[in-house]
Amino acid sequence: MELFEAIETRRSVRKYLAEPVPPVVIEKAISAALLAPNSSNLQPWEVYHVSSPDRKAALIAAAFDQSGAATAAELFVFVARADTWRRNRALVLEELGKRGEIPKQQLDYYTKFVPLFYSHGFLNIVGILKKIAFSLVGLFRPVPRGPFSGSAVKGVLSKTVALACQNFMLAITAQGYSSLPMEGFDECRVKKILFLGGESAVVMMIAVGKEDPAGIYGPRLRLDPKLFVFEV
Amino acid sequence: MELFEAIETRRSVRKYLAEPVPPVVIEKAISAALLAPNSSNLQPWEVYHVSSPDRKAALIAAAFDQSGAATAAELFVFVARADTWRRNRALVLEELGKRGEIPKQQLDYYTKFVPLFYSHGFLNIVGILKKIAFSLVGLFRPVPRGPFSGSAVKGVLSKTVALACQNFMLAITAQGYSSLPMEGFDECRVKKILFLGGESAVVMMIAVGKEDPAGIYGPRLRLDPKLFVFEV
Repeated sequence: MELFEAIETRRSVRKYLAEPVPPVVIEKAISAALLAPNSSNLQPWEVYHVSSPDRKAALIAAAFDQSGAATAAELFVFVARADTWRRNRALVLEELGKRGEIPKQQLDYYTKFVPLFYSHGFLNIVGILKKIAFSLVGLFRPVPRGPFSGSAVKGVLSKTVALACQNFMLAITAQGYSSLPMEGFDECRVKKILFLGGESAVVMMIAVGKEDPAGIYGPRLRLDPKLFVFEV
Repeated sequence: MELFEAIETRRSVRKYLAEPVPPVVIEKAISAALLAPNSSNLQPWEVYHVSSPDRKAALIAAAFDQSGAATAAELFVFVARADTWRRNRALVLEELGKRGEIPKQQLDYYTKFVPLFYSHGFLNIVGILKKIAFSLVGLFRPVPRGPFSGSAVKGVLSKTVALACQNFMLAITAQGYSSLPMEGFDECRVKKILFLGGESAVVMMIAVGKEDPAGIYGPRLRLDPKLFVFEV
């Protein structure tokens, strides 16, 4: 399907028919998700395809039994991880090394800047010191204004994961199925179901299935772009 | 361009040729951005197309003079707004009203749930009370675990804006141009340049232009999907 057609036909579908989604559709959508641009190419995402009946039932309950989750053939949870960067950095550097000598600037980026970005120390002490230091230097020249805490890191990584979610949903649309991104769920319960700890943020739950026409709530409603777009 | 081709060919381009981007390309990409799914359909986004030379120069400096920003023909700033929901809610309800009687569930959602989501009171007192109340009830049944502060609201809305950013970047690719999403910038300075206040979060700066082949740093590098994808 043509990109603009996918973007235009994608709707949030809140009710699905009892029709399975072929595994190849799911594989293709996940592959598309993993091609999104991402923070420092450290690929901080995880995609949980929840198909065991018990876990699925628990997930639906954690999403307040909303019909989009309850009727979907497939449920996915997109997660941001603040703790996989060391592993992924090692793997990225290994792969770059195989391709040739790593430019000094790139090596410095991964060995000096990235740890500064991700590490905040016990009780966030490093984060607080960073914030003070950057605020002072920032009086005189541009400086990064974060992330200065573990939760701020998860905020940054959640944006990366959202980019992947959009690729995923478009890829589902392009293959004739529909999706529903959900942010309304009990994150504590979702984390328990997936055995996730404090270094993870549950970014989005996404339902996938064959659209029940009753699952579309009226024609799409978008406000006047003049409210949102500014040429400055 | 076919969706999967757009997803596969999109790369982060860090250097651009001195070639303009036709306005129609930009218009189409912004329209695509505004079709992303979004939190409660309250469309909490803003897109700043920065073209005045002074402002552009200031923005490039705020992005640490990185070549992607400095050489791009066009610069965009995608912003999440935590304070446009009342206006947008009124407009959404007005439009829904024109289409027919608004179902009670939907009306309740916008008049009862949405304010609960967005309002946290002076010194975040309402947010703290909400957190305590939900934590207690959450012992017994699924409850939302946030947002319980203004900054948490901005975190949620930033995910929505990231979905729009991905549509935007794919639409740029599909029209033969390239993009670079940037998260490394001085948010305070960017906000000053755009006259944005505390209710805004700068989600992403995006450079757009015609790719200089030197702006692609080697073949795409993605780690083994087995590290990220779990069937549970």
